[in-house]
This record gives sequence, structure tokens and C-alpha cells, in this order.
Amino acid sequence: MAYQGKKLVNDPNDVVTEFIEGLVETYPGLQYLDGFPQIKVVLRADVLSATYDKVAVISGGGGGHEPAQAGFVGPGMLTAAICGDVFTSPPVDSILAGIRAVTGPKGCLLIVTNYTGDRLNFGLAAEQAKAEGYKVEMVVVGDDCALPPPRGIAGRRGLAGTILVHKVAGAAADAGLHLADVAAEAKHASEMVGTMGVALSVCTLPGQVTSDRLGPGLMELGLGIHGEPGAAVVDLQPVDVVVSHVLKQILSAETQYVPITRGSRVVLMINGLGATPVMELMIAAGKAVPQLQLEHGLAIDRVYTGSFMTSLDMAGFSISIMKADPAILARLDAPTRAPCWPVGVEVVGDRPPTKIPVPVPASNASSKKESIVSEPRKLNELGCILQVAIEAAAQEIINLTEKLNEWDSKVGDGDCGSTMYRGATTILEDIKCYPLNDAAETVNEIGASLRRVMGGTSGILYDIFCKAAYASLKQNQVISSRQWATALEASVAAVSKYGGAVAGYRTMLDALIPASEVLRERLDAGDDPLKALLLSSEAAVTGAESTKNMRALAGRSSYIAPDLLSSVPDPGAMAAATWYRAVAQAVESKFHPSKN
Amino acid sequence: MAYQGKKLVNDPNDVVTEFIEGLVETYPGLQYLDGFPQIKVVLRADVLSATYDKVAVISGGGGGHEPAQAGFVGPGMLTAAICGDVFTSPPVDSILAGIRAVTGPKGCLLIVTNYTGDRLNFGLAAEQAKAEGYKVEMVVVGDDCALPPPRGIAGRRGLAGTILVHKVAGAAADAGLHLADVAAEAKHASEMVGTMGVALSVCTLPGQVTSDRLGPGLMELGLGIHGEPGAAVVDLQPVDVVVSHVLKQILSAETQYVPITRGSRVVLMINGLGATPVMELMIAAGKAVPQLQLEHGLAIDRVYTGSFMTSLDMAGFSISIMKADPAILARLDAPTRAPCWPVGVEVVGDRPPTKIPVPVPASNASSKKESIVSEPRKLNELGCILQVAIEAAAQEIINLTEKLNEWDSKVGDGDCGSTMYRGATTILEDIKCYPLNDAAETVNEIGASLRRVMGGTSGILYDIFCKAAYASLKQNQVISSRQWATALEASVAAVSKYGGAVAGYRTMLDALIPASEVLRERLDAGDDPLKALLLSSEAAVTGAESTKNMRALAGRSSYIAPDLLSSVPDPGAMAAATWYRAVAQAVESKFHPSKN
Repeated sequence: MAYQGKKLVNDPNDVVTEFIEGLVETYPGLQYLDGFPQIKVVLRADVLSATYDKVAVISGGGGGHEPAQAGFVGPGMLTAAICGDVFTSPPVDSILAGIRAVTGPKGCLLIVTNYTGDRLNFGLAAEQAKAEGYKVEMVVVGDDCALPPPRGIAGRRGLAGTILVHKVAGAAADAGLHLADVAAEAKHASEMVGTMGVALSVCTLPGQVTSDRLGPGLMELGLGIHGEPGAAVVDLQPVDVVVSHVLKQILSAETQYVPITRGSRVVLMINGLGATPVMELMIAAGKAVPQLQLEHGLAIDRVYTGSFMTSLDMAGFSISIMKADPAILARLDAPTRAPCWPVGVEVVGDRPPTKIPVPVPASNASSKKESIVSEPRKLNELGCILQVAIEAAAQEIINLTEKLNEWDSKVGDGDCGSTMYRGATTILEDIKCYPLNDAAETVNEIGASLRRVMGGTSGILYDIFCKAAYASLKQNQVISSRQWATALEASVAAVSKYGGAVAGYRTMLDALIPASEVLRERLDAGDDPLKALLLSSEAAVTGAESTKNMRALAGRSSYIAPDLLSSVPDPGAMAAATWYRAVAQAVESKFHPSKN
Repeated sequence: MAYQGKKLVNDPNDVVTEFIEGLVETYPGLQYLDGFPQIKVVLRADVLSATYDKVAVISGGGGGHEPAQAGFVGPGMLTAAICGDVFTSPPVDSILAGIRAVTGPKGCLLIVTNYTGDRLNFGLAAEQAKAEGYKVEMVVVGDDCALPPPRGIAGRRGLAGTILVHKVAGAAADAGLHLADVAAEAKHASEMVGTMGVALSVCTLPGQVTSDRLGPGLMELGLGIHGEPGAAVVDLQPVDVVVSHVLKQILSAETQYVPITRGSRVVLMINGLGATPVMELMIAAGKAVPQLQLEHGLAIDRVYTGSFMTSLDMAGFSISIMKADPAILARLDAPTRAPCWPVGVEVVGDRPPTKIPVPVPASNASSKKESIVSEPRKLNELGCILQVAIEAAAQEIINLTEKLNEWDSKVGDGDCGSTMYRGATTILEDIKCYPLNDAAETVNEIGASLRRVMGGTSGILYDIFCKAAYASLKQNQVISSRQWATALEASVAAVSKYGGAVAGYRTMLDALIPASEVLRERLDAGDDPLKALLLSSEAAVTGAESTKNMRALAGRSSYIAPDLLSSVPDPGAMAAATWYRAVAQAVESKFHPSKN
């Protein structure tokens, strides 16, 4: 169904104007012509047409493609950008105003994307400017590789490859070349680049409803940057497959859109279409490079990853490949202060290796573990009890996985169950290596297992929990129930100290503090140790369940609004109570097997 | 309803690993430790711990916030970034590996966002590294201003303000300061910054379904960057209002989260949360600056606008305000090659004016128009006919607006009707100024009206159409039907030449070419001019409707896949046929009023 897309804007008619105002606030090297709202021209603050002694490089087009083109105005790249309304070519008067504002005696080059509106408006403005005495050249960029030739009236669309042409032309102009030479370099660059886009969503025009053209699980191949339908709608694929398809189409030997063949040197641009996170763009870049190298036999000289030429809030990316030669690379690498051209991309000298070995000091952990495994396993009584208790606790946590995730999704990031599950399953794997006859060492190993696989807060808190118990237990030759109680107290204290929580903060401590207190009380009162353990495990469960009614100052993650807490218990407390009760019941059943 | 969010990724478990691979492909100055997938550390390729003679600045945290933190590794900013899985703090072993890889004799500073997991893991790693002989300091950043104090266990969350702290610390280290001084500057900076976020959508964890927490028309205030619920859900507002609310909350005199008062100098950061287009970020920046100046009495020294610390694919932004002093500004302005720190933000010397006047040469158009208006209006017969015909044509176009938009939404960008409507309503306004007794000048003025308001392709094509007719008509003193036919031929030829279209390309020419041909034929055959005109208008309609069955090589915009074309006529052709028929019928009714 069509729906109203959400945007953080004011009047939908003012988006381009207000974009320019914000751009110029952000980048003090930019200025705009005071002809709002009709004339929207962004230009270098340091250029005055009368005295400018270099060729001015001017581009522009409809809005909705930000940062293109205005974000590429700066020394070494564009001299001015002429902005139209969203997806609407700027009018001739705006283009003329831009030309007059920055063009000096050496003339100007207009770089125009190949859309009829842009060609006509910039073309007429060029003719008018020439009539006024300016030297003007125009280069049209059509880098789209989505559809096979013939292309009819308008030919190939101008897409993100245009940004690479801007950089080449801007650097050539900055080097002091004459207009004809700057234009020749731009034209050459435009012929070396091919682009194709992929989208997961269509874009929403400000103030309009979003088309329902692209349903769940679908993506569009070979689309443009104005919301127009793409060449094909297909099922969503892993990005590996998407990248492979796009690269093959750009480099197709049939269409021969770019003169790139096995052995060529190329530069790669991964361009976000507006709503694509940097993470996904980088993943695509990381996959495109080895595919170009290994499957297409190309050498990759530079990679540009970012959102350069967008389509409002479209999710997806385009890939551009430009055939590189030393002249083009020198232009791409030349310094610029255009704010949205990426820095740190050029290779200075030999490229260092991308990965280096981890500098880990020699560890004694593995050798110790090996020696344990090599010994034949003969468990004493305590070892057997430990084994049963650990396995029972791990199994109960595994059973609780979904429930923990469900609670956590309401008060945290929803992964408590999955994290605990990783810990529990790893313990069940690692237990065969634990020195079960040595309770202190076994507890320490459990901590190491948990920290290794759980990560995050809970992994390290459980490691602290185990480390404290280990330090307490290893002071004794034989471990009594009172010494276990002391170890539990030490663990609770350590978790509280490093984690910063106390009772009532909705953490594992809301289960473990009552458990520890009841265990100590019952032992002091002379109860049977097994009974004391069972009673303390009931206290743990009661304590964990009581978190459901806590209007705590802060939840597990500390940043939950208080009124969101009342309906679900704290998942960390519930997990702690669950394994603690499983341990108690397992120990009890080991000593009183007949009762079960 | 909950739904599966779309992402361009491979295995959801590998997103951080694959992000790092792409990042390092893009930026050759970066390297990673070869301990994938457990150890994910990005570091400067030019730093070797044994010989590094500056304080290493290290940060890190869970993934999902790209480009933070790895995108800020580079000379002058971070020395290394330790990456965890999505929203999961990196394990102690990874942090230790990073510390060992880059820390030299001057030691290292760990900058840690205030989340329990990060505090614990980085804290334990710091203790371990100290035990190994490294000098280590740690600064915790908690810049969140969403909720009022007290904050309980974890205190304020670390948000995008952390990036500003990185820059200050990185520049201080780069200047050769000792560890204690670098740490002191970082701590000072962390106390000067406050941040608050706003979201339009929740983020989708890779491989998981998206929460339906935030419905249509709603936004969330004071959220974090891990998908946790915000402080309040409210109706979507214009961005002006949103910015105003956020600024007031950050600068609240009640919470006193930042020591900023009327008259303070500040820097501003507008940070996208992952799926927010640059256009919207810049609009927010453009609105925040005058509000800070006028409503809060602050001086804005720098504005940083971009996506620095994201939350996967969340739509929305956070605003950070940092109290600036000359020392902080010098650190923020210091050069860095960290790839994702913005360039072109610092002010060199006095800031130039943001807007400059449009350099338009003196025009004679307005004076001419005035003289026309001042003359009393006496229309001759031709003037009366022209007036009726123009008004009828404009009215028919207005009636057709919705239909044109509907057709165009299927084959183009959906605005053909709205664009034509703008032209038609403007003609109805401007007609009182047209010199209707002079047909040639009137046609020329119509072109000027259309170009002024229509923009885009159609505006300029109709201007070309009118300019060609004007040139043809003005050669005659008295205009006969044959001269109108000649003018139409000239118009058709000009539109074809500049626009590149011929018959069958699904453009206005598919209506106008048959009309022009039939008109000439019938006049040559000796028909009554009025009959010839009516017949030619029928040919225009027939021609326009025939575009519905054209499997053209290219559509209006040239980039429509052929199979999408068959069901709707070309809106541009239908618009041309409609006004042409309206003109014919109006002229006919003027000469034969009794017939109607």
C-alpha cells in the first residue's frame, strides 16, 4: 500500500533552498547567490569572476541528489553548482547567473548529466552566455549501463560517475589548463566510466506519498536516480550476488559501454542512494574489489565509498567503474577542499598490507588445556556433582532462550537470550576440558568460556563473577557448603563493584543477592546445606520475578524510561535465577536421587 | 506489523567483519589485525607500537554505528579502533590486542562510551595492559541529555559527542603532549558536550525483523543508538519544531548537563543516524544555527553535519552542542587524515558573507512589460480570438491535471500534470499583460511565462516551441492561416532539434507532427481554414492516443523499460493534443458562435 514517507523537513517546496542554507552554514568556504528561491546557486566564496584566472567548472541539476552537486564545490573541484527544485532541472536564468558569477577570462566548462531538461537548460544558457562574450564549453555525462543499446532519444542517463568527471575537470582547471584542454579531459573521463544502480526502496518526494512499487523481499536493478522504475525487479539477494551481477553488466562485452578489458587498471565508486548506511556501502566495496580482481582480471587503483549522488531517501547503491590511466589518477588524487570529496583514498607510496598479525604475547592457556585433556578422566564425587550441576544449568538456560529474548526486546536490545545461549552451548562443549575435580579451576574455566563467546556486558560480568569465586574457593583444600556461600558472596560483591549496580537496579544481582543472603542465613541457622541451597534458589527466583514491579531508576541498560519497565521481569535476573535453581536442583537430586 | 527490514548484506553475523574489509579497501592508510573474526581492530598503517613516539588514542565499541569508530582512525585522530559485533562491546582480548599493536613508550588513552559493557571490557583491558607495563588512561564519555537526572547505575549514555572528544584528544596527542595532558583535554571536552537524538524509524538488526514500535506519523525523542526506546513518542513535526525542542532540552537550565549559558561560544554537530539523507541533515543544520543564535544567544564557531555515529539504518538525527574555547577550537581545526572527519568546516581568517547578490545584467524585459500594462487595452479581432483561444487551452490543461499526473506516475516522475498546471494558471494570470493585438509578441510572452514557472524539460521545450513560432510569425504584418501553419512547422522542427526526439519517441511531437502535417495538407487541398484546423486537432488527439501502443525505444524520459509503456499514453503528447484541440475549438466557436 502507498504510505506517507517520513521526512525531517519543513515546507516540502523549500527543501532545496533550506539544504543550501544548511550547507553554507556548515562549510564557510561556500556561498550562495542571494536570489532565493528562484535562483539557487552555490559557489566558492573565494572566487570573483572578474579576477578569476582559471577555468571555472560548473555543474548542476535537479535537487534530491545531495550532496551532488553543491557538496562538490570547492578549490580543485567545482567552482559553482546550479541547483534546481527536486528532480527538476534548474532554469536558464539560474544557470546564467552562476556562469556570470564565477566565469573569468579563461571561460567556463559546464558538466551536465544527460537528461533532456539539463541538456536543454544548460545548452540554452551556454548559448546565451556566449552571446554575452563568455567562453563556454559543455560536456554531457551519460554513464548508465543498465539497459542495452540502442537508447533512443536521450541516450544513457548521467549517474554517479559524473562526480568522478567533476574531479578530473576540477583538477585540470586548478592546474591552470585552458578551456579546450579542461573540456577534453572531462570528455575523456566521461567516456571511461560506467555505472549501474540497485535499490531496495523507492524514494519519497517531499510532501508526497511513497509508491508501493517495490514490495517486501524485492529489489530493483538498473534504476535511475529520479524514482523512475528500473530495468528489472528481482528477489532480494545477498550483496555478494548483487555486486557480481552489477559488475558483469557494467563490464559486459556485448554493450561495450566502457572500454575496460582484462588487465585494465580501474577506479571503483560505491555510491549510496540516500538511505544506505555506511556499513552496507563498505560491505559492498569489500566484496567488489576481490570480484573485480579475480573474476574480471582488473587492477583496482582507488576505491571511493560513500553517498555522493543520491536519490532522496532511496535505499540502495550504485557502482561506478572508471578506466584509470596515470593522467586520470593524478587528477583524482590532486588535493581539493570540496567538502564531500572523500579524503584518505589516495595511495601515498607503496600501499601497506591491509592486515597485520595480532600481537598476542605467548599464552600459557592452551598448553594448560592440552595437558588436562591428555589425562584420562576420572571424576571424584565432587567432580561428578559439578558436572551434573553445570550441565543442568546450561540446559535450563538453553530452554529459556526465546523467553529471555522476548523480555529483552521490551527493555533492551533483545539479545539477552541469544547471548546466554552462546554461553550455555559453549559450556556444554568445553566441559570435557574442565578440570572438574578442582572446583576452583573449573569455575575459573567457566568464566573464560563465557567471556570468550558471550561478549558484551553479560560475558564480562560472568567472567568477573567466576574470577571472584575462583579467588575465594582456591584458598581451601576441601570446599564446604560454607565456603561455597563465601564464594557466592565474593562474586556478588565483585559484580556490584565493577558493574556499579546494587539491589533494585534490575540486574542479575536482584536474583543473586537474595540467594546469597538466604544461603548464609539458613547455614547460620543450622539448616541442612541441601535444604539451605534449595531455599536460597527459591529466593533467587522470587527476587528475579520481583524485578517485574520495579520502577527502577535505570534498567539493565540504564536508559529505559521508567514506565516501560513494569510489565516484564529483568531478563538478566531471570537468567541468573534459572541457572542457580538448576544447580540447586541438580545437586539435590544427586544426593537424594530416590526423591526425584 | 513487524516486517523483515531489507539490507544489502551477506551473512548477518559477518557484517562488522565485512565492513572492516571494505573500509580498509577504501582507505589505504588503514589496516586491520589479522585476527578475524574474533579480533576486529582497525589501526593506522603507519604506526608501529615499538617506535611510536606519541600517545596512542584508542576507542571502540559495538558495531552498527559506522563510520564510528573505525572511520575516525588516522593521523591526528584515533590510532586504533576496537570493533565489537553489532551493538556488542568488543571482548577484552581484542582491546588488549589493539593496545599492544599501537601503544609505544608514551602510553595510550582509551576513550570509551558510557555503556556498562564498554566500561567493563575497556576497564579490564586497561588493568591487564597496565600489568603488562603499558601506561594507560581511560576517559568515559556520557553526553546524552535526553532524560533528567538522577540516572542510576550507568549514568548518561555516550552518543555522537564522543566523536568531538576523539578529535580533541587525537589532536592533543598529535601535538606531542604527554598522556596525562591528553587525558585531561579529552576529559574536559567530554564535560563540555551534550547530545540528544530524534528518530523517525527504529533500526533493524541484520537478519532480524524490524520492531513496529514507531508507527506512521510518529517520531521518537531522546532515543539512544542501540534500538532502545526513547524518552517519548510524539507526532511527527516540521524539522524547525523538532530542532527547537532538542536544543531546549540540551541547553536546559534545570538539568545543567552542559555549562553553556547565554553568550557562550559553541560548536554544533548534526549527526545522521544511518538512513537520513544529507539533504535533511543540512536542513536541520540550517535551522539550528539561527535558533542557537537568536533564541539561545550563542555564537556558533563551527558546524559539523554528516553521519558520524549511526544506529544501523535508523532514520533521524542527533544534535550535539559543545562549549567551545580557543583551545578546543584549535584541536578541532587541527589537520587530520582520519577519513570520516569532515573537511572544509574550519574558518580560515574572517568568514566571508554566506550570500552575495545575483550578478544579473540590466534587463529591458520589465520596462517593456510596464509600458504594455500602462496602455489602455483595446483588443482588435485577432486579439479577441487569441484571448479566447489561450484561455480555453489553459483551462483544458487545468482540467487534465490529475489525469496527466496519473499517466506520468506510471512512466516518469509523476509531475507532468502539476508542471503543466503551473504553466496554465500562470498564463491565465499573465494574459492581462500580453500584447494580444500582436500575435507574434504574445506567443513569445507565453513562452517566457511557461519557462519561468514550469522549469524542467517541458518548460524549456515549450519556450523553444514559442520562440520558433515567434521568429516565424514576426516576419509578417498580417498573419494568415498559412502563416500559422508555417509557424507550427517551425516550432515542431525546433523542438525536435534541441530535444532530440522524432515521431514515435513518445513526446509532444507525436501529437504536434500529425497536427502540423494535416493542417498543411488540408490548406494545400483548399479546405476552409477553420475546417483544416479542426481536422488537424483531431489528428493531434489521434496521434497522442496512439502513443499508448508504442513500444518505443525510449519514453519521455528515455529510461523506461519498453514493457512498461504499453498501457498508458504519453502524458506530454496528451497535453499537447489537449491544448491544441482547445485552441481549434475556441477559434471555431469564435467564428461560428451559432453552431455551439
